Amino acid sequence: MEKIVPVGVSARHIHLSQEHVDTLFGAGYELKPMKPLSQPGQFAAEETVAVFGPKGKFDKVRILGPARKASQIEISKTDSFQLGIDAPVRESGNIEGTPGITVKGPAGEVVLDRGVIIAARHIHFHTKEAAEWGIRDKQLLRVRVGGTRPLVFEDVIARISDQFALDMHIDTDEANAAGIKNGETAVILD
Amino acid sequence: MEKIVPVGVSARHIHLSQEHVDTLFGAGYELKPMKPLSQPGQFAAEETVAVFGPKGKFDKVRILGPARKASQIEISKTDSFQLGIDAPVRESGNIEGTPGITVKGPAGEVVLDRGVIIAARHIHFHTKEAAEWGIRDKQLLRVRVGGTRPLVFEDVIARISDQFALDMHIDTDEANAAGIKNGETAVILD
Repeated sequence: MEKIVPVGVSARHIHLSQEHVDTLFGAGYELKPMKPLSQPGQFAAEETVAVFGPKGKFDKVRILGPARKASQIEISKTDSFQLGIDAPVRESGNIEGTPGITVKGPAGEVVLDRGVIIAARHIHFHTKEAAEWGIRDKQLLRVRVGGTRPLVFEDVIARISDQFALDMHIDTDEANAAGIKNGETAVILD
Repeated sequence: MEKIVPVGVSARHIHLSQEHVDTLFGAGYELKPMKPLSQPGQFAAEETVAVFGPKGKFDKVRILGPARKASQIEISKTDSFQLGIDAPVRESGNIEGTPGITVKGPAGEVVLDRGVIIAARHIHFHTKEAAEWGIRDKQLLRVRVGGTRPLVFEDVIARISDQFALDMHIDTDEANAAGIKNGETAVILD
């Protein structure tokens, strides 16, 4: 049985703590959901922020909600050159020792002392699918993308939860290298 | 025997016909070699041009010399979004039916009616190496890149000539997706 997964291409985006939402947008501000994401409860917010590195900036970086415990910005390697920030490839949430960035909103500014990462490619599995397909949490998978620029991604991290919906997350560099667009599919080889 | 190839990462660049060099830099202008490239006789020129798409521009695009029969600009998929030009993945030189772009130099402007491509990944082999490794011209190879973001590129085109030096050419999206830098190496699987 072919293990086919939908692919979600993540453009640069930021997750904010409620404390930082307060500083950037005003005390007690609530992010406005604009579009639901593939993972239940997650959304792209109407709000964006500007971010500034030593070499460059991005004026409009989408905020993903809801607010999290720690702020974190996920960029591509291409973005990292433009900003002049040497971000490491990390799993979401693992921001110890990562570089920081300056974030500006309509009500104020936050200087993050860490939290800039290039997200490691990964697949969200619901517990049920993972069991059916014999996939373990944190397993590293090989995943093939066909099309105009076919390639096999190695070290794709399996993440399993009964709160997850099946979706593979890659960044824009990876999508462009593979010639794949949001909503297309990939096949898990092993 | 492992078939190890050095990797050259191609940033966006342009090849110009002598006619277009004349228009952009002045009649009879000769490009000044700044740095030799991996392929014998090829060089990065001191000169750059500005290019303009419907959505964006790049102020300094490096010219590679010497002048060719037809002008051609090679960009990444990421660049194509920034310019607003839907460039196809093509082999170098195969520009029939590709989109155009506006190019500006210190002495004038050229509106190319075609020539914007995303270069198909490929490996240059000297005839001798290709024979030793049993590789045919135009063969599609699978090539593995290790490191922080390991992956296997499929459909890597073999190009063989006694004028070539061994080198794999990928663009910046592909390099960033693979976490590889100029001068690192890849392994041909088959």
